[in-house]
Amino acid sequence: MSAGEPAAPATPAGDGRARPGPGTDGPALARLRLDLAYDGAGFSGWASQPGRRTVQAVAEEALGRVLRLPAAPRLTVAGRTDAGVHARGQVAHADVAAAAWLAAAGSAARSLAGVLPPDVRVRGLVPAPDGFDARFSALWRRYAYRVSDDPATADPLRRHDTLWHPRRLSVDRMNAAAASLLGEHDFAAFCRRREGASTVRRLLRLDWARDDDGVAVATVVADAFCHNMVRALVGALLAVGEQREPPGWPRGMLAAAVRDHGVHVAPAHGLCLAEVRYPPAAGLAARAQATRRVRPAP
Amino acid sequence: MSAGEPAAPATPAGDGRARPGPGTDGPALARLRLDLAYDGAGFSGWASQPGRRTVQAVAEEALGRVLRLPAAPRLTVAGRTDAGVHARGQVAHADVAAAAWLAAAGSAARSLAGVLPPDVRVRGLVPAPDGFDARFSALWRRYAYRVSDDPATADPLRRHDTLWHPRRLSVDRMNAAAASLLGEHDFAAFCRRREGASTVRRLLRLDWARDDDGVAVATVVADAFCHNMVRALVGALLAVGEQREPPGWPRGMLAAAVRDHGVHVAPAHGLCLAEVRYPPAAGLAARAQATRRVRPAP
Repeated sequence: MSAGEPAAPATPAGDGRARPGPGTDGPALARLRLDLAYDGAGFSGWASQPGRRTVQAVAEEALGRVLRLPAAPRLTVAGRTDAGVHARGQVAHADVAAAAWLAAAGSAARSLAGVLPPDVRVRGLVPAPDGFDARFSALWRRYAYRVSDDPATADPLRRHDTLWHPRRLSVDRMNAAAASLLGEHDFAAFCRRREGASTVRRLLRLDWARDDDGVAVATVVADAFCHNMVRALVGALLAVGEQREPPGWPRGMLAAAVRDHGVHVAPAHGLCLAEVRYPPAAGLAARAQATRRVRPAP
Repeated sequence: MSAGEPAAPATPAGDGRARPGPGTDGPALARLRLDLAYDGAGFSGWASQPGRRTVQAVAEEALGRVLRLPAAPRLTVAGRTDAGVHARGQVAHADVAAAAWLAAAGSAARSLAGVLPPDVRVRGLVPAPDGFDARFSALWRRYAYRVSDDPATADPLRRHDTLWHPRRLSVDRMNAAAASLLGEHDFAAFCRRREGASTVRRLLRLDWARDDDGVAVATVVADAFCHNMVRALVGALLAVGEQREPPGWPRGMLAAAVRDHGVHVAPAHGLCLAEVRYPPAAGLAARAQATRRVRPAP
């Protein structure tokens, strides 16, 4: 799941137009939007860590090579996924020298396919509209969690992004419990604590449905997620779905704002960041400003 | 792709009813139908080979354990997939001691899920209807071949069952070429030669469509396939799809009955046995008899 929305960066995001770089004599910069997909199995999550293979470091290095930049550009991301979590709809932005972008723009997306390892793909690489900030302009993030609970529907080809659950699940029970969690709440019971960070989030959608193959898929949408939140929610609902806990149990935990020992955070490999939604271009800058007010730097 | 339909076995298939075993004092036997799915990456194909990890050997050993048989039963399969080829709809049968089946029947399918490695799943395990023979009763086999030709639709989570093709493909061109191959022909140009084996097959369906994610998926249906046939057909059509060869080229090769050097057999990992279709129960035995007449032992 998302590693949460960290505090605002030290420098405000740009407005997306080519503009002078940090030094007064710096080159004009262009803000690029990247749409990414990755298999999380081989990564220690999104965020760069010394000595670890991370999506961020691999993508930054590839983008630097393809644009022939002297140093890898810095990516700002919508959802900082944890180790083992996948993405099909991740979004990031980077500010790069406008001249470098113009020189490579026509072939950059296909070149990235050749440079990146096969477990990361850049599906889109375009100049970002004015006011775009991959993290702060986002309206909401959507995650999907896949669970197979029946040998008759088990698909070994999807075992890397689907949890195998050895007991049958009631989707109806899970949905009854899920509905009671919607809205703006302090999700402290479902978040890993982080000093000084709010755990108030607005949960816009949480429901389960069986897909055409009989796999139970949870759809989870929120304005943002705190650390561990999707996987803790899914873990609580699985306990309800297999009749180990009553449907009212997750709501009681939410109200108590304390994690119950009965919640097993669901494994990372069933989780995928499916989509990040942004407002129309005219609303990007205003949305970014509003988000920064709600989640200011500590 | 399928490794082809080998010659008829030395002993005729049974009628599916519990019946005496090979010795006069042998136990009554029950014929079981298994529906299997597997990730072909870790296997040297379906068919048992000394010293190799094969789906057949792994599945036979697991079935023997779950039914507590003194020796692993022998599986007869509908499609002998090659190394690296996947299955979601593979079908096999086994004749086992009826008493062993009755003792385990209630829990056997779930027990298999615990005993099998994660890259093979038995999705169904039921007594076969009278006259059922997984190989000879089949009306047709359906394979799917997945190709991603656009970074915008590339999905790293599906890279193990999807070919990445670095040039754009025209589905219309491939379909025009494919249509000219339908019907009963000698597919020698698309088969690996096997001494004394016919290469006449009836191609019932061969077409391409883009799925919801933009992946080009070939659907290939035939009464049976000879060795390498699906992958050679797909390889020829990819050459047409990327404009390297004209749409009439595969048909010309078929007529010449000689493999062209320009055909690259498509890689195994894009191919999946999707379905094996059988007639209604009343027609199983007659279909098996008819198949044996058409493809007798050499």
